[in-house]
Amino acid sequence: MQQLLYGVAYYDEYMPHERLDEDIRMMKAAGINLVRIAESTWSTHEPQNGVFDFSSVDRVLDAMHEAGIHVIVGTPTYAVPTWMVKEHPDILAETPNGPGRYGARQIMDIANPTYLFFAERIIRKLIGRVCGHPAVIGYQVDNETKHYHTSGPNVQYRFVKYMKEKFGTVERLNQEFGLDYWSNRINSWEDFPSVVGTINGSLGAEFARFQRQLVTEFLAWQASIVNEYKRPDQFVTHNFDYGWKDGSYGVQPDVDHFSAAAALDIAGVDIYHPSQDLLTGKEISYCGDSARSLKGMNYFVLETQAQAFPHWTPYPGQLRLQAFSHLASGANMVEYWHWHSIHNSIETYWKGLLSHDFSSNPTYEEAATIGRDFARLSPKLINLKKKNRAAVLVSNDALTALHWFPIHGRKVSYNDIVRLMYDQLYEMNIGCDILHPDSDSFEQYDLILVPTLYAASDELLSRLNLYVENGGHIVYTFKSGFANGHVKVRTDVQPGFISKVCGVQYSQFVEPNSVSLKGDLLGVDAEHSGVNFWMELLTPTTAEVLAWYDHPHWGAYAAITENHYGRGTAIYIGCLISAEVMGKVLERVCRSAGLWSPDQELQFPLIVKSGTNNAGRTVRYYFNYSEEPKSFSYPHGDGMELLADRPVHRGERIELDRWCFVIIEESADTK
Amino acid sequence: MQQLLYGVAYYDEYMPHERLDEDIRMMKAAGINLVRIAESTWSTHEPQNGVFDFSSVDRVLDAMHEAGIHVIVGTPTYAVPTWMVKEHPDILAETPNGPGRYGARQIMDIANPTYLFFAERIIRKLIGRVCGHPAVIGYQVDNETKHYHTSGPNVQYRFVKYMKEKFGTVERLNQEFGLDYWSNRINSWEDFPSVVGTINGSLGAEFARFQRQLVTEFLAWQASIVNEYKRPDQFVTHNFDYGWKDGSYGVQPDVDHFSAAAALDIAGVDIYHPSQDLLTGKEISYCGDSARSLKGMNYFVLETQAQAFPHWTPYPGQLRLQAFSHLASGANMVEYWHWHSIHNSIETYWKGLLSHDFSSNPTYEEAATIGRDFARLSPKLINLKKKNRAAVLVSNDALTALHWFPIHGRKVSYNDIVRLMYDQLYEMNIGCDILHPDSDSFEQYDLILVPTLYAASDELLSRLNLYVENGGHIVYTFKSGFANGHVKVRTDVQPGFISKVCGVQYSQFVEPNSVSLKGDLLGVDAEHSGVNFWMELLTPTTAEVLAWYDHPHWGAYAAITENHYGRGTAIYIGCLISAEVMGKVLERVCRSAGLWSPDQELQFPLIVKSGTNNAGRTVRYYFNYSEEPKSFSYPHGDGMELLADRPVHRGERIELDRWCFVIIEESADTK
Amino acid sequence: MQQLLYGVAYYDEYMPHERLDEDIRMMKAAGINLVRIAESTWSTHEPQNGVFDFSSVDRVLDAMHEAGIHVIVGTPTYAVPTWMVKEHPDILAETPNGPGRYGARQIMDIANPTYLFFAERIIRKLIGRVCGHPAVIGYQVDNETKHYHTSGPNVQYRFVKYMKEKFGTVERLNQEFGLDYWSNRINSWEDFPSVVGTINGSLGAEFARFQRQLVTEFLAWQASIVNEYKRPDQFVTHNFDYGWKDGSYGVQPDVDHFSAAAALDIAGVDIYHPSQDLLTGKEISYCGDSARSLKGMNYFVLETQAQAFPHWTPYPGQLRLQAFSHLASGANMVEYWHWHSIHNSIETYWKGLLSHDFSSNPTYEEAATIGRDFARLSPKLINLKKKNRAAVLVSNDALTALHWFPIHGRKVSYNDIVRLMYDQLYEMNIGCDILHPDSDSFEQYDLILVPTLYAASDELLSRLNLYVENGGHIVYTFKSGFANGHVKVRTDVQPGFISKVCGVQYSQFVEPNSVSLKGDLLGVDAEHSGVNFWMELLTPTTAEVLAWYDHPHWGAYAAITENHYGRGTAIYIGCLISAEVMGKVLERVCRSAGLWSPDQELQFPLIVKSGTNNAGRTVRYYFNYSEEPKSFSYPHGDGMELLADRPVHRGERIELDRWCFVIIEESADTK
Repeated sequence: MQQLLYGVAYYDEYMPHERLDEDIRMMKAAGINLVRIAESTWSTHEPQNGVFDFSSVDRVLDAMHEAGIHVIVGTPTYAVPTWMVKEHPDILAETPNGPGRYGARQIMDIANPTYLFFAERIIRKLIGRVCGHPAVIGYQVDNETKHYHTSGPNVQYRFVKYMKEKFGTVERLNQEFGLDYWSNRINSWEDFPSVVGTINGSLGAEFARFQRQLVTEFLAWQASIVNEYKRPDQFVTHNFDYGWKDGSYGVQPDVDHFSAAAALDIAGVDIYHPSQDLLTGKEISYCGDSARSLKGMNYFVLETQAQAFPHWTPYPGQLRLQAFSHLASGANMVEYWHWHSIHNSIETYWKGLLSHDFSSNPTYEEAATIGRDFARLSPKLINLKKKNRAAVLVSNDALTALHWFPIHGRKVSYNDIVRLMYDQLYEMNIGCDILHPDSDSFEQYDLILVPTLYAASDELLSRLNLYVENGGHIVYTFKSGFANGHVKVRTDVQPGFISKVCGVQYSQFVEPNSVSLKGDLLGVDAEHSGVNFWMELLTPTTAEVLAWYDHPHWGAYAAITENHYGRGTAIYIGCLISAEVMGKVLERVCRSAGLWSPDQELQFPLIVKSGTNNAGRTVRYYFNYSEEPKSFSYPHGDGMELLADRPVHRGERIELDRWCFVIIEESADTK
Repeated sequence: MQQLLYGVAYYDEYMPHERLDEDIRMMKAAGINLVRIAESTWSTHEPQNGVFDFSSVDRVLDAMHEAGIHVIVGTPTYAVPTWMVKEHPDILAETPNGPGRYGARQIMDIANPTYLFFAERIIRKLIGRVCGHPAVIGYQVDNETKHYHTSGPNVQYRFVKYMKEKFGTVERLNQEFGLDYWSNRINSWEDFPSVVGTINGSLGAEFARFQRQLVTEFLAWQASIVNEYKRPDQFVTHNFDYGWKDGSYGVQPDVDHFSAAAALDIAGVDIYHPSQDLLTGKEISYCGDSARSLKGMNYFVLETQAQAFPHWTPYPGQLRLQAFSHLASGANMVEYWHWHSIHNSIETYWKGLLSHDFSSNPTYEEAATIGRDFARLSPKLINLKKKNRAAVLVSNDALTALHWFPIHGRKVSYNDIVRLMYDQLYEMNIGCDILHPDSDSFEQYDLILVPTLYAASDELLSRLNLYVENGGHIVYTFKSGFANGHVKVRTDVQPGFISKVCGVQYSQFVEPNSVSLKGDLLGVDAEHSGVNFWMELLTPTTAEVLAWYDHPHWGAYAAITENHYGRGTAIYIGCLISAEVMGKVLERVCRSAGLWSPDQELQFPLIVKSGTNNAGRTVRYYFNYSEEPKSFSYPHGDGMELLADRPVHRGERIELDRWCFVIIEESADTK
Repeated sequence: MQQLLYGVAYYDEYMPHERLDEDIRMMKAAGINLVRIAESTWSTHEPQNGVFDFSSVDRVLDAMHEAGIHVIVGTPTYAVPTWMVKEHPDILAETPNGPGRYGARQIMDIANPTYLFFAERIIRKLIGRVCGHPAVIGYQVDNETKHYHTSGPNVQYRFVKYMKEKFGTVERLNQEFGLDYWSNRINSWEDFPSVVGTINGSLGAEFARFQRQLVTEFLAWQASIVNEYKRPDQFVTHNFDYGWKDGSYGVQPDVDHFSAAAALDIAGVDIYHPSQDLLTGKEISYCGDSARSLKGMNYFVLETQAQAFPHWTPYPGQLRLQAFSHLASGANMVEYWHWHSIHNSIETYWKGLLSHDFSSNPTYEEAATIGRDFARLSPKLINLKKKNRAAVLVSNDALTALHWFPIHGRKVSYNDIVRLMYDQLYEMNIGCDILHPDSDSFEQYDLILVPTLYAASDELLSRLNLYVENGGHIVYTFKSGFANGHVKVRTDVQPGFISKVCGVQYSQFVEPNSVSLKGDLLGVDAEHSGVNFWMELLTPTTAEVLAWYDHPHWGAYAAITENHYGRGTAIYIGCLISAEVMGKVLERVCRSAGLWSPDQELQFPLIVKSGTNNAGRTVRYYFNYSEEPKSFSYPHGDGMELLADRPVHRGERIELDRWCFVIIEESADTK
């Protein structure tokens, strides 16, 4: 990338009246240099089966080019036209809720050949038409692709073949999945039932993995078609989205982002998050770290909120804070969904930069200041590189398995635990990467956090054990290692494969009722010492106990332990603890792993993010994520504050107004 | 009408043993002079396809006639016989929940020709048989008719024709409904998908309007058949029911009462409401005002509760209070559903005047006092005429649109806002009418309240603007005018078409979080100043600000404004306020519109209702809707208290025991 | 029975690796002398249609026999193999939720002949093979059988024939079920609709009774097949389970335990219950009393919890307390579900005696102490006989009817009322039986409690009236007698048939709102005097009023009355009262009925259970169901404390540690 991209999703097709010139004028005024088009409007571009009309694409490309605005063209395959469903109703995905109904997007069976035929044709027509256009800098394949729970007969049929391939014999499958239970044995491949009604979590999790593989294959298939057309200076990307809880929250259950990203040139993501008093930057940081880790490089924020929902309308300053937070995590693009607020249908209240009246408004005006700063500071801020010493290992398999074997009626999800750990790192300003279980780069980290790795193969746990033995620091939460890669509970004393490295064992676990932590190795105060929803009755073998349970019957068992193994250290947290206690555990391990630096003397809501820019210099962002003014003493080498373009000296007191930030480039090269 | 009607729904067919003579004896003892029969018992009257048995009708008619009790005969079409469903399963309505199941009433497709064939035949057989009987004073067509969400293929098919008729071209439809969004375009009428799964609120709202039209047509069709038989001295009515929330609550979502009432001679309604400590009279008043407004004349209460649910069993005095409250709103009939409590099936605990034991009971005994008073006072109380200067404008379209674009996850419904406004008028004893958007009589009112008119045509808003310009007072709540008649958000600065008249504008809105009102023009106290769920960031252009938001970021925006425009005044309320603040706003506008009179010095729970009787004299009801005795000083001209038949003088102190009332007829003619 | 049985459900088929010898070693070490096998693993024993493999059964039988462990063999019919569903999808039960899906157990139509064909074949193959094996002491037919809501066309078809048989003419059916209502009449048997959608509670309740009859017939059919094979020294049993609410809670809605038990030699039950701080022994006692009453003899606990759920993991001592509580209620067997924790599928967290690691653990170790005590004390504790003077009458029909006509939106269920009465008896240490409405032994009791007998035939109520007349004491709660056996509300003054015996009448009832009891005959304190959800406005005719309602309008009505009738006494409770007030009512009637003894001076959490052992001596258990130590003065004849084998004297102070107990055998014979 040569330039920070500041963009909007643009839908000329949705306009209630002719707007193109006026929109471009307003975009230019706001520093917008990118639009994404075409990904939502198949029925406009192919109004009838085999009849194509790309006039709105053509005119937007030409106008944007003339204005010097780049364009990403999306393949319009995530929302199917009415004629297709009327002509071929079977393209709708059959799901556990029954046959599909036309209306929403993302309702088709991505394994259906009829759908694939039409999808391929429109992709070739559209991309073949636009690929030579000078405005087009790249392509987005599909949009927030998932499997939409497709599970009809054709999918079940392919799943049986997948299982045959994977397990070879029904005998092995029955044994590994425990199918004797409740007479669920499959004694002949012909007997394989639809898994829609299964009560076997191993089978259910394997089907979910198969469905995620459908997504990976679908995106790779689209990318391979687009690659036939794309110019060397163009890229293919995709906008991954995340598990949702009041916004982008954690691991996407239905997609393996890492494997699906392999077919892309650049990873893209959609990040939405709470705002106003609830704006913390955590989602921007988590999703950004995740996106950057997908391909180990800078990424695109293909969608994020402008005004969005009524309860997200940003306070003054927040839009700026958000935009630069994306850059600070390594984004090279910040693109809003979307330019204008839509006047009909289900996303009418998901507002864009412009309100429905197309006029200027406070949010648009704030965006214009961002556009100016992006343009001016692009050379300094683009391509920020990071070398983090901490990582958080996340796993689709663990997420799915924990969904099947939930904690306390799903009161606590896998992503809750991921975020419990991640958010504490964030609050103490420890930069980190997001690790996939298949990664071969464990050794490059001094610390790996492992949230509740409920299902994991022997192979993965062995590598994690070796990591500790070789000097790594690791923190596991409860239930890690409990089941193997097929979600079969291990038959060893728990925590199974990692028991020795962690220096603990248990064979019983309970739900806590008025249980708290005792033991002062962590300095836990009473208010935050409660234990909720899950606790394992740990007995240390070689580990030191950091905290015990305070309970009339379970008081002899350990709750949190630390074990030195080989040249490394493993902390095991046997219960669901408060954010405060998690913070203390992570501070302890960060200090022990040598990760403690002056940046850690600052704490949320003062957030520090840093990296190295194109010039090889360290750039540090200091964000005030709060409603109150904050100040801090700048602890690093002399440099320039880039927004105000003024020198900053080590030890200088820096004031940050509410929701404000500074960007300091150190003068000395980092090398 | 020559006589106040005091009635019960009567089901000879449901009796566990022969009761007719004894029932009539008890009815006469209670002053019952009307029964409604036959509307629920198709399977009794047509036990097999084409086999008819009206013996229970005949014997009841004869016995009632002999006893001097009038009869309304209902067409028995809202509940279909078993044989019909067994023979023609397709008469059951297919709904978004799937195909119908036999069991409940109101499960058929009112657009199904097989059903219509059978319905017409039974109507002709029944009405043809009874129309000459001297006991029969009128007919009820069907019962609480709605569309039962019928939406199967035949209904979709007709809907497409309706759309073709309305929009002419798909191009216009696509444009107005924004169907480019998410590839929803319909590029050929043949492609029109079932709208059951639509996510387009414009389409959904249009389908709901189409479904309401089916109801209007169905009732008109029934009335036209009955009209072929009815004598000049007989009437056709129907019992409309209301949106439900712990009772009859507000606008009926599934029927346009005003258009459906056109085919009737007299409008009828069913009114159910909370009781015991929760009895306020508000539902009686709202539904009564609505019913009276349907045809601008007196109406029937065809159903209201006797004992009903266990939690509604009236306290001593409440049944009387309720009955006379109906009269005070303009009813000429009070009919209980129903005479006796049923011994089987789903409404066993919806008790009638008699309990299951058919004996006398306190509620029946209280009814007997009502019957005596009705008979005695009928000449004074019948045909009460009202000339209200205030009105509340309600709109099916706005209700449906707000259901599609809900406030805070439907925590607040359209009817909640209707009632927030209406109930405050009620509490300050301002009589009002209910206005339909198509009404051409806006000008006869000094004040029109407009609850959240979310979807409204240019034409309607223009007429409202003109109303203000010509001297009217209007109060809008938030979101009014936001979308046009096709639920397309307006592209002007908001509140769109009414912005100029209201003297405000906004382009942003948020959900309040710890926001209250500030500014003392309304004298709001802190306890009730909270703002909930919705707030628009208003900027006054010409309006005076009555209240601002109290918030660190939104404090510069107005919450409630008042604008003088032309010769009139428009108040705009940009947020959801408490009942107390609404009361203050409405008091202000009522004073300003000259609606303040001595009756307004009394407040709920002392309720005043008035009108002019056949003799041209003013009759005033004073109700004590509370558990405590109340008193007041009578401020009007000398008259007679009709219940006690004693003179009352201006300025006299009148005592009302709990749940009691007086009726004072002024001695002087009003003319 | 010659020996207390201490057992586990054992699944060799589920083992992740060869375990048999080691399992048996560990069982022997824990005193396990019984295993139940084979009831869950049809797909293992018949891997393909007509292909049988009983090798796991054979080897387990041989090994158990060699170890001296008894075996119960279950018929494996409650969970069907994959091949069967693939070959004959119609064996899955069609329910009100639609067609069945393969996956879970108990999803088939127990009336489907294809299923019955396969079931009979596997039963004959399995039982024919094992019946001669010396390890086999008996059989369990099926497992927790219910009707699984089967209601497809074949079931409807049979139901119509059942109705024809029962009612003879449609006219009688229409009359008794009130089908004129809402045009529901069935004027020809051919018109009989599926009752899945019915809104007629009489019809719904009759269908539920028909479905329960399917269960009775199914179990009798299985037992008749097994009886062809069983040796004289073998028995047939079945594990009935109970209505569920956080554990086994009350009457099973879907099975008539009494009629289904007729086909069995010995009744068996599954009992699960809250644990840890919530352990009270109430479920053990209720279900045990129920099981003992089924055939008037000792019973088997075929399943109860070992570790089970995380929130049920027993505190130290609780497993022992539970095991001996079962014996104290008359069980001759305590069997855990299950031996080992399962490594896959839906019951992974329903843990057995062993955790997933198959190692010893605290629960297993405590079980070993139970095994030793059972073996040692078997001659003293087996075959405990009871002669209770109190009984609680429970009724499937009343339960179903109350489900159709619920109290306050099902906030209070029939079982809640059963338990409100039962639990108070338990807390005051009054032993009781559970009575079926068809029982002919009412006269053997001094006291019968009748929780809300909402639907009851004239015949049943007549017998209860006669019981009082002849000197019995009875306590009814509200709504008893309200409807007849066809759930038709009685047309007499309420409480109908029992009005005279109870000396009260009412025709109105309400839901209480801030109502409490007044009148001090019961000595109710203000804190517990609240009345909730339901109250009848009782007028005493001959009864004495024990409590009145405290309310501004309902204060003249009685809430609880007592009437002397004939030689007996009837208490009628017209409202839902607190447990405390119920306790006072029951104490009053127990004293009056002469049931008060020294054991009643102790109260929960000190629980006393007693009976007569094989030697004819009285054995008394004293349990401390609490977290605190308790002590009491032993009030009975001198004897031996059996656990410690030490003498105990009348008046001796006995200390019980938390969750501990003693067992005292009186030295003198009871005769």
